[in-house]
Parts: sequence; C-alpha cells; structure tokens
Amino acid sequence: MKPVKIGLLGLGTVGGGTVNVLQRNSEEIARRAGRPIEVVHAAVRSLGRERICDTQGILLTEDPFEVVRNPELDLVVELIGGCGLAKELVLEAISLGKHVVTANKALIAECGNEIFAAAEKKGVSIFYEAGVAGGIPIIKALREGLSANRIEWLAGIINGTGNFILSEMRDKGREFSDVLKEAQELGYAEADPTFDVEGIDAAHKLTILASIAYGIPLKFDKVYTEGISKITPQDVIYAGELGYVIKHLGIARRSQAGIEMRVHPTLVPASNMLGKVDGVMNAVMVNGDAVGNTFYYGPGAGAEPTASAVLADVIDLVRSLEGLAAHRVAHTGFAADQLGEDNLLSIDQISSAYYLRIEVLDRAGVMASVASILGELDISIEAIIQKEPREGETRIPLILLTHVVEEQRLNQAIERIEALKPVSGSVVRIRMDHLD
Amino acid sequence: MKPVKIGLLGLGTVGGGTVNVLQRNSEEIARRAGRPIEVVHAAVRSLGRERICDTQGILLTEDPFEVVRNPELDLVVELIGGCGLAKELVLEAISLGKHVVTANKALIAECGNEIFAAAEKKGVSIFYEAGVAGGIPIIKALREGLSANRIEWLAGIINGTGNFILSEMRDKGREFSDVLKEAQELGYAEADPTFDVEGIDAAHKLTILASIAYGIPLKFDKVYTEGISKITPQDVIYAGELGYVIKHLGIARRSQAGIEMRVHPTLVPASNMLGKVDGVMNAVMVNGDAVGNTFYYGPGAGAEPTASAVLADVIDLVRSLEGLAAHRVAHTGFAADQLGEDNLLSIDQISSAYYLRIEVLDRAGVMASVASILGELDISIEAIIQKEPREGETRIPLILLTHVVEEQRLNQAIERIEALKPVSGSVVRIRMDHLD
Repeated sequence: MKPVKIGLLGLGTVGGGTVNVLQRNSEEIARRAGRPIEVVHAAVRSLGRERICDTQGILLTEDPFEVVRNPELDLVVELIGGCGLAKELVLEAISLGKHVVTANKALIAECGNEIFAAAEKKGVSIFYEAGVAGGIPIIKALREGLSANRIEWLAGIINGTGNFILSEMRDKGREFSDVLKEAQELGYAEADPTFDVEGIDAAHKLTILASIAYGIPLKFDKVYTEGISKITPQDVIYAGELGYVIKHLGIARRSQAGIEMRVHPTLVPASNMLGKVDGVMNAVMVNGDAVGNTFYYGPGAGAEPTASAVLADVIDLVRSLEGLAAHRVAHTGFAADQLGEDNLLSIDQISSAYYLRIEVLDRAGVMASVASILGELDISIEAIIQKEPREGETRIPLILLTHVVEEQRLNQAIERIEALKPVSGSVVRIRMDHLD
Repeated sequence: MKPVKIGLLGLGTVGGGTVNVLQRNSEEIARRAGRPIEVVHAAVRSLGRERICDTQGILLTEDPFEVVRNPELDLVVELIGGCGLAKELVLEAISLGKHVVTANKALIAECGNEIFAAAEKKGVSIFYEAGVAGGIPIIKALREGLSANRIEWLAGIINGTGNFILSEMRDKGREFSDVLKEAQELGYAEADPTFDVEGIDAAHKLTILASIAYGIPLKFDKVYTEGISKITPQDVIYAGELGYVIKHLGIARRSQAGIEMRVHPTLVPASNMLGKVDGVMNAVMVNGDAVGNTFYYGPGAGAEPTASAVLADVIDLVRSLEGLAAHRVAHTGFAADQLGEDNLLSIDQISSAYYLRIEVLDRAGVMASVASILGELDISIEAIIQKEPREGETRIPLILLTHVVEEQRLNQAIERIEALKPVSGSVVRIRMDHLD
C-alpha cells in the first residue's frame, strides 16, 4: 500500500522521538493506520547538529517553509513551539490544504481561534493531542469518549514540574526554592521556571481543555493564574493533618453563573485519585453529568510519550484520509486483513512472581527444606515472613514472595513442598505483578 | 439539520439511561455530533412494563426485528445482552447495512470474529465501547489514543463486584462469603454471582482488550480464568504487611514466548495506581513502549455511565455519517458554527471552599473575633486546628477550613481579619476542592 508521507517541523527531543517510535513500530503502525507512514522531509535549526534519531531517508532542511510547501506531503507535524514562526508555518500549511498535527499548546491556546477558522475554511484538520498532558489521550477522551456528557467540571495536574516540586515538599518537608533548584538540576524545570511554576504552561493547557469541555472559543487571557511559589512547608503539613494534599490544579467548572477557568494551588482530599498523583506525572479528572468522575493518568512530557500523542493524531488523520468514512477505525483498531495469529500461551507457560502461604505444623527445619526445594528449581525469594500461630491454631503460616519464574516450575516446587512432612494442606499460591 | 434516527433493542436500565441522557443533553449532543440524534423506535420485552425514561415520541414494540428492519433508522443500538437473540439481531442489522452500537461484551468476546467479518463485508461498523469498563473510554484510548505504541501489557480491574468484595475484605477484615452476601443485598452482585466472582465477566472484557492491544482475533476460550472465592482474610492481611493489595485483575501481556491472557487474583503494590482503586470502580493500566504507563479510571457499570459510552459510539458514528472524512471531529469537538460565548467568570465571582492560615500573636479572644467576622458574612467553618507556636516563634497559627463561599465575600472577611489587632501579617488563603 502506498505510504503516507509526512513532514516534520523541528527535529529536537519530540521530533527525534517521533521518528524513533515511527521507525521502531512501523509495521504495527501500518497495520493500525491501514497504510505505512514515513517521515520524508524535516526542518531543523541547524544541519550540523547531532540527532537522537536516524535520519536516513529524511530530507533535512534549515528552511521550514520548504517542508510546508512540499507538494508530496500529506500532512505536516509542527514541533517548533511558540506563537511566532510556528503560527506562520501552520497557517501556510493550511492555506496549501495540508492537515497539521501539533504539540504546541501555546499556539493553540493563544491563536487557536484564528487557526481553527482558517482550517475550517480550507477543510483541513488541526490535531493537537500532544499539547495537553503529553502521552495521556485526554483530548480524545473529552472530545470523543465523553461526548454525550454535559461536562460539569474538570481538574488536572497538567504541569509535571509543579507536581514534582509539591510532591517533594510534602514527602520531605522541603522548601519550594530548594526543590525548584533540584528540579532545575534534574532537567525537569527550565532555567527560567516562570512558565511552569507560575502556572502559565498549565493555563495554556486549561484553555484548550475548557474549550473542548464547553464548546467555547479559546480564551487564554481569561484564565485566572496563580503559581505555587508562595506555598510553604507549613501549609503542606497542616493540609496533610486535615486529610488534604496541595496540588497545582487547572480547573474548569460550569456553574449557574458561568464558566470558571483557573490555575492555582488547591487543597484536594488525600483519598481522591488526584491526591495520589506524585512526582512529574500528569492526571486529569473529568466530571460528566452522565458518567460521573473519570480519571486519566500518565506521563505529561518526554520525547516518546509526546511522540505517542503526536503519532496517534497522525494515525487518526491517515485513517480518515483512507476515505473509509463510515468505517474510520477498524473493529479491533487493526485493518481486518492484518490481524495476527499470535502465539497464545497457556497458563503453565506464563511467568509471574508469586505469593505463597505454606502452613507448617512444626517449624524446625521446614524453612531449610522449602528453601532448598526452591533453590534446586532456581526460584529466588524476594521476601519471607514467618508468622506466629493464629489463636487456637497450631499451624504456623510461612509467607514467601518469589521473583519472576515460569508457572510450570513454580508448580513443581509447590508439589514438592506439599509433600514435606511438616507441611499441612495445600500451599496457597497467588500471582503477583509489579506492573512495571 | 435533519435528525439522525436511531433504534434501541432493549429499554431496561441501560436503554432507559440512554434515552434519558440523550433527551437531557440533546442540544449539547447535537452541537457535538453536528446533527440532532433521536430515538424513534425501541424494542421492549413487555409493552406493559413501567419505564425509567419518558417514551414519548418513541414507537415501542415487542418484536425487536421490527426495529432492526425499520428502513428509517440510521443505526441500531443493541442492549439485550447474551449471544442468542442479540446475535441474530446484530447480524440482521448488518445484513441490512446498518451500523450497530452494542454494550454486549459476551457477544463481542464470544462471537466478535464472525460479527466483525460480516460488518467488514457490508461496510458497516460495530462499536462496543460500553462493553468494557462502562463509562471509561478505554476502547477508544487503546484503539486510537495509543495507536502508535507497541502494547507491552495491560492490567485492569474490570469487574466492579469483585473489586467491591476485595476492598471490603481488606478494609474490614471480612470473609469473602460474608461480603458477597452484602453485595447481593446492595444489588452489586447478581443472585448467581458466578459470572462476576469467578471472573467470566472479566474474561469477556479482557478478550476484547487483548484483541485491540495486539491485533489478534477474539479468543475468549483461551483466557485463563480464576475467581476470587478462595481468597481468605489472612492472605489479604499478609499481602498488606508486605506492601501489596490483592486485586482481581484481567492481564494481557506480550512476552517473547507469546501472548498471555489471564484473569486471576493478583498482588499489586499498594503504591501503584491500580492498588488505589477501591469499591465498585473500574480501572485499566496500559503499558505502551513509547508512552510508558497510562491509567484510566471510572465507573464500570450503571445506567448513565454505560449510556455515556453507548452514546459516545453513536456520536462517533454520526460524525462519520456526516461524510466529513477529512474533518471527522470538529476542532473543539463542537461544530464550528456552534461555539457558545458562555459567560466567563472572573476570579472574584467564583465560589470555592478555602484553607486559611491566620498567624496570631496572642490567642485570647482572637478566635471569637474571627468566628464573628465569618458569621456576619455567612461563611461557615468546616474545621479548625489551633497549633502550638513553632519553635522560636511567638506567633500561633490558626488553621481554618471554610465551606463553599463566593471568593469576593471571603476576601472581605480576610480584609477584616487582617485588621484585627492580634493578627500578624497576611492571612494565607489556599482554595480547596472536594472534587465531587
């Protein structure tokens, strides 16, 4: 099938990540999109610079307009950022009838109305999933997944740097300025951290989310924005004593009086899912009148998480380019003639870590026997607890956590353990997953 | 604009919820879908029964084939359940060239291959978002939002009844059978709970998720399925002591050897987001090679959460019916000529609960003065802590949480509090949101 040719404006962190993911998963992406997707043209700031990706087969140029004007391209991905050159390029691409995918939240939040109007007029699409909450498909959830709902409110941790700082302040009782310095050293925060810690970045993203939630034009200048630089360790502690954590939230809410858009430090219940989001992770909770609360969590930045969102938009557009209007996504997401017959494993063949509870009548020597059985079968132990007998019981529970092992082998071990004389009854076996 | 006419097969809990949401949000849904959507025909088991929805304008029939064969309908929603009559009806709808939306996980998991093949042949779509995890748009996330990723694994709490039982066992040290009885009384569990607690329902959903994750045919009979009825309170306690919680997970994983599909009790780290999902809620964590871990959480059942998913599918189909292939979703999710100019509120006009920290030099009488200022302005207090002075400090922090009040009014109170003689410096004010 004829490949879809795309051009990239910018080949830095996100651009390089996009090329890497596209190359690594090219086959699976082609099965999903219905056609192979190839980056054939990319604009870079300087041709001499080193890249994080293989650029073989990609025509590189220092003139981004060359990419935009390349008539061979089906769509253009804008990864330059900001509202200057990026805006010019996007408008030019639109005027030439090209679809655009962008990760540029500032551009959409500040100039989205103009850009969308131009795109409507030309009948092309501007997709911007990567602009909000990185790899989390929150735009899609809000725009499509929750489309039957009247959105009452949404609240998001949509700046990872700010959340990292607040998490550290809470966990270690540290001062804001102290953690900020560390975040800068770790590369989480920019040299000029204003954008992150004063909430401007979050306000860009909130503007976009509110526009989708309520069907209103983008109004970045109407967002009330307050940063986290004045939060003190004491307030973090007192909030904790009352059962709350302080999070830097972007909140859009519809009340009878009107629509609120605001970014500010907020006390949220520690028991709420948003209260459980730590470190640089992002998350958004959405309240819809029909569905109630749904919650979306994931990495909000980084080369490949952002590339994941950029490419999801590209694949969406390619699926629609196919002209299968009534059939735009294949039933399983893979083209019907591209379903694999992958090898399905039986439960014996899987590998897992395990929790084992062994009830022994007499502990003398048992532990050694169990350990030697496991050792012989090359099953390593992660943790052991030996409990006192429960009231009225003579049996002593021995709890073991194993490292990952093939289930078949583990079952052999269990069989041999159950045959030990001091072991009473069956061994309780529960699988364990670190989910990492 | 000419309304899209749809037919419902089944008008019970989910069918009634679907009609209710569609009627309540008709205007907003029309703005999003580009056309009004109307239920005009519905099949019911008995015409005499009472309904949870208004059926005015809906032609009711006891013969579901009458709905399927109605040539006026653009699409049919199947809410009957099971693989018998429902399958016949869906295949008939397909043969007549109608798109189908279904909430029927058993039908897709067990007969999806046949149904999808028939639909491909006819060029129609079968959408089934409501079949997995109720109101959470997880099918969409996996099929579209994460489409650039090679999915390494996914793990889900996809049966609310089971999760309710395990949550209660952990929080209250109760026995499985005891909690199951309560769940049945609460209406969470069926009279015959096998489907839920033995993992069959979860296996249906996992079959669907694995098929989308890996692009493989649906193979329900290959899922290893183990229930939670043998989990004891002791194991729940011991797991807790080791830092784990026991969850009933559906897991699909791709290893070098092949693909695993399994439903069983699993120890997961208490610190993992899946470990934090309590009660009847559902959640799915997905690991993609580019994005890393993303996590989706929400209500897995219920009339309106399920209706939310059903209608999202209907709206998706209507958007594609429009023939706007290259433009299938409007930029904000609302038709461009349907953007509202809703009243945006300034920060003074918002309402919120507040955390206040007031530093006082001398506590005698201060609390009474503060309380009287708040009382005069009709601001009620949710909690107070009075702290001892911090070391080396003479000022005593007074922490107040207020109930929801207009910010303007709160600011008046702060101004008056700051003017009190024993109050030192500015009052610290942080907004508070219960996110409910």
